[in-house]
Amino acid sequence: MKAEILATGDEIRSGALVDSNSAFIAERLEAYGVEVVRHTSVGDDLENLTAALVEIGGRADVAVVTGGLGPTVDDRSAEAAARAAGVELEFNETAWKTVESFFKTFHRRMTPSNRKQAQLPDGCSVLDNPVGTAPGFAMTIGRCRFFFMPGVPYEMKRMLDGQVIPELIRLQGDAAMHSRVETITTFGLPESQVGEIMAGVEEAFPGLTLGLRSNFPQIQVKLYGRGPDSTQLAKRLDEAVRWAAVRLGTAVISEHGESMQAAVGRLLIEKEATLAVAESCTGGLIADWLTNVAGSSNYFLFSGVTYSNRAKIDVLGVSPETIDRYGAVSEQTAREMAEGARRVAGATYGLATSGIAGPDGGTDEKPVGTVCVGFAGPDGARSRRLNFSFGKRLMNKKIFAMAALDLLRKEIK
Amino acid sequence: MKAEILATGDEIRSGALVDSNSAFIAERLEAYGVEVVRHTSVGDDLENLTAALVEIGGRADVAVVTGGLGPTVDDRSAEAAARAAGVELEFNETAWKTVESFFKTFHRRMTPSNRKQAQLPDGCSVLDNPVGTAPGFAMTIGRCRFFFMPGVPYEMKRMLDGQVIPELIRLQGDAAMHSRVETITTFGLPESQVGEIMAGVEEAFPGLTLGLRSNFPQIQVKLYGRGPDSTQLAKRLDEAVRWAAVRLGTAVISEHGESMQAAVGRLLIEKEATLAVAESCTGGLIADWLTNVAGSSNYFLFSGVTYSNRAKIDVLGVSPETIDRYGAVSEQTAREMAEGARRVAGATYGLATSGIAGPDGGTDEKPVGTVCVGFAGPDGARSRRLNFSFGKRLMNKKIFAMAALDLLRKEIK
Repeated sequence: MKAEILATGDEIRSGALVDSNSAFIAERLEAYGVEVVRHTSVGDDLENLTAALVEIGGRADVAVVTGGLGPTVDDRSAEAAARAAGVELEFNETAWKTVESFFKTFHRRMTPSNRKQAQLPDGCSVLDNPVGTAPGFAMTIGRCRFFFMPGVPYEMKRMLDGQVIPELIRLQGDAAMHSRVETITTFGLPESQVGEIMAGVEEAFPGLTLGLRSNFPQIQVKLYGRGPDSTQLAKRLDEAVRWAAVRLGTAVISEHGESMQAAVGRLLIEKEATLAVAESCTGGLIADWLTNVAGSSNYFLFSGVTYSNRAKIDVLGVSPETIDRYGAVSEQTAREMAEGARRVAGATYGLATSGIAGPDGGTDEKPVGTVCVGFAGPDGARSRRLNFSFGKRLMNKKIFAMAALDLLRKEIK
Repeated sequence: MKAEILATGDEIRSGALVDSNSAFIAERLEAYGVEVVRHTSVGDDLENLTAALVEIGGRADVAVVTGGLGPTVDDRSAEAAARAAGVELEFNETAWKTVESFFKTFHRRMTPSNRKQAQLPDGCSVLDNPVGTAPGFAMTIGRCRFFFMPGVPYEMKRMLDGQVIPELIRLQGDAAMHSRVETITTFGLPESQVGEIMAGVEEAFPGLTLGLRSNFPQIQVKLYGRGPDSTQLAKRLDEAVRWAAVRLGTAVISEHGESMQAAVGRLLIEKEATLAVAESCTGGLIADWLTNVAGSSNYFLFSGVTYSNRAKIDVLGVSPETIDRYGAVSEQTAREMAEGARRVAGATYGLATSGIAGPDGGTDEKPVGTVCVGFAGPDGARSRRLNFSFGKRLMNKKIFAMAALDLLRKEIK
C-alpha cells in the first residue's frame, strides 16, 4: 500500500514553520507497513491545494493530510477536497456535534465561524477530534483514500493513532506487512567510508534497504525491512546487523541505535563506576550530553567547565608550572585536568578536554581543531592529542566532545 | 518567479529525519522576492526522484533541491537529474578539482567513491562547496532552472547564500525587488500570546508580513518587507520593529535576532564583567550555550556542573546544613551555588540552577519542572523558584537554562 503525506498552510510553504508532522506521520505509517512514497507541502491557495489533492489521488493508495481545518478563511482543506472529488460542501451534523461537545467539555465560547468547521465534503466520514475544535474527515479522491487531520501536532497525533492507523490496518486486510528498522550508531569513520563498507548489505540480504543518516559527528546506519512474518523479519535484520557490526568494527557505538552518551552511561552502570569531567574547549557540551540521559545522576558526578586558567588551577588543581611550560592546550594539562576532576569529585574515572575550537586562538603548532583529551582511572592517567579540521566552532566542539567520550568508552570497555 | 523546493533522501521520506532545510530555503527565497509554491520530499528511489524532477521542471521557474550528492550508493540526485533532462552523466573536471581541493585543505583521506561526486549531468554548471566534499550544480530541466545542493544544513546554507541567491537575483533581472527581514527574539510569552500582540502589525504597516518562528523556548518574530527602494524599506521595517518592541516589552531579548546567549555576552562585554555558573539540573547546557558564542572566553570563566551533593559542597562551598535542611533543589542551595561559583572563579557575577528536569525525582512539594535559579553579584545574592510544566526532560533543561539566563540578563541590565 503506497502512501503520500500532504502538509498544508502558508506558514509551512513560506518556511515560517518547520513541518515536523510529516516526519512523525511517515515514521508511524512505515512502522505499520505502509510505504510512504512522497511528502508534499502547499500553502492555503485553493487552486494549488486542489491540484495537489488531485495529483495524489491519481498516484497513491492512501494519503494523510494535515492542516487547513480551522475556523478561519485561510483554512480551505475541506473546500479543496470537495472540489478535487467533484462533490459539494454540506453542513455535517455529526461533525457539528463533535465541535459542540468539545466546546461544552472545555467551557469555551463558540464563535459563528466555528460552524464553518462542520462544512465538510458530501459523503465524507468524520474523524473525531477529542482534544481540539477541528474535526477531521476521511474520503476518497480519485483512487486514493484520504485522511484529513488538523495541523496542531498533539491533535494530529491523537487522531492519527486513535482513528487513522486502525483504519489503515483494516484497509491492509490480510495483505498487512510487518515493517521493522534497525539502527547501528557509529563514530570515527567518514560517511563515504561507512557507505562503502555497507554497500554490499542489500545484495547480502535481499529485500533489506540501507539508509545512512549523518547526525554529526555520529553516523547512523539504518536497515529497513518488510515482510509478512515478523519473526522471520526480525531474524533477518539481526543477521544483517551482525554482518554490519563485524565490518564496521570499533566504529560501532551501538547495534541498537544508542547514542554515544547512552552507551557510555550503560557501560558505567555495568562497571558500577562513576565519572567526573573537566572541560575547556568543549565548554560543557560533554556534561550536557551525558545529563540528557535520564538516570545519569547515578554515574555522572561533576564537570568542571574551566575556561579560565585560574579555574583550571583553583578548581582542578592543575599545576601553574604545567600550564606555563606546556600551555593550557597540551597533553600534560589535559591529563592533570582529568586527574583533578576525578580527585575533586571522588569519581572512578576522570575525562578532560583542552583544545582550540576556533575561530581564533590557533597557532602553527596548535591550529584550530587541535584537542588534547585526558583520561584518569584507577590504573593511572594518560592523554592524547588529536587534530580535526572542521573549521567551524560548533562542529569542533561536537567532534572534540564525541572523540573524548569515544576514548572513554574504549578505555573502560 | 515561482519556485519549488525538493528534499531528497530515505531518511526524510521515512520520517527518520525532520526536513528543516526546506523551511530555511523557503524563508530565504521569499525574503528575496521569490514566491515558493510547493515543497516536495521523495526518497532515494531513482524512479520517484526522476519523476519528481520532471514534474517540477514542468511547473516551476526555479527549483532548489537538497540531498543525494554524497559519495554513497544511495546518493542519486545527479543520476536522476541527468535522466530527467535526458543527458548523460560525465566526469566533471571542475567539480573534481573542488572535491580534491577540499580534501587537500582539510587533510582528509580520499576514497575511490569520492570520484562519484564528480560524475555530474552533461552541461551543468558546478556550485562550489567550500565547506564539504559534495559539489552542487545548476542545470535546466524542462522550463525550470534547478539548483542542486547537499543536504548537510551548514553546507547547504553556505551554498544557498553564496551562490544560489545571487544567481536568483540575477535571474529576476530588473524586476528584482529589494527585500528585507527583521527578526526580534523573545522569551517568556507563549507563541499564541506573541501572535495576539503582533496581530495588528500588518494593518499598522501595510505591505509588511508577519512570521512567527518557535525555536523552543525562544520565539522569533519575523517581519518581512519588499519594495523598490531599499532605504524606504529599511526605514519602514525599523518603525515596525519599534512598534513590536514596545508591545512585547521585557519579553524582547533582542531587536536584531540575537540569541539569549549572544545578548547576555554582549551585555557582559559592555559592563566589562565576567561570569561564573553553577549548574545542577541544566547539566552544562548553560555553559555550552555561552561557549557557542565566539569570544566568550573574554567573559565566561567557569561553570561547575555539580550533579552530586559532594561536588556542590567541595567545589562550590555550599554548606551541608543548607542541603540537609532545605534540600539540593531549594532557593537557599541555588543562592549558595551562585555565590560559590562567583567566589571560586573570581567572577563579577554568579548564576546557578538547581531543579528537577525529570522524568523522575519529582515530589508533591517539588514536582518535575521545578527549578531554583540563584544569582550573585557585587550587590549580594538572591534566588527565585520557578515552575514549568513541559514534562519532557530535554525541554525542561532548555527552559531552565533559558530562564536562568533571562534572570541574569535582567539583573545586569
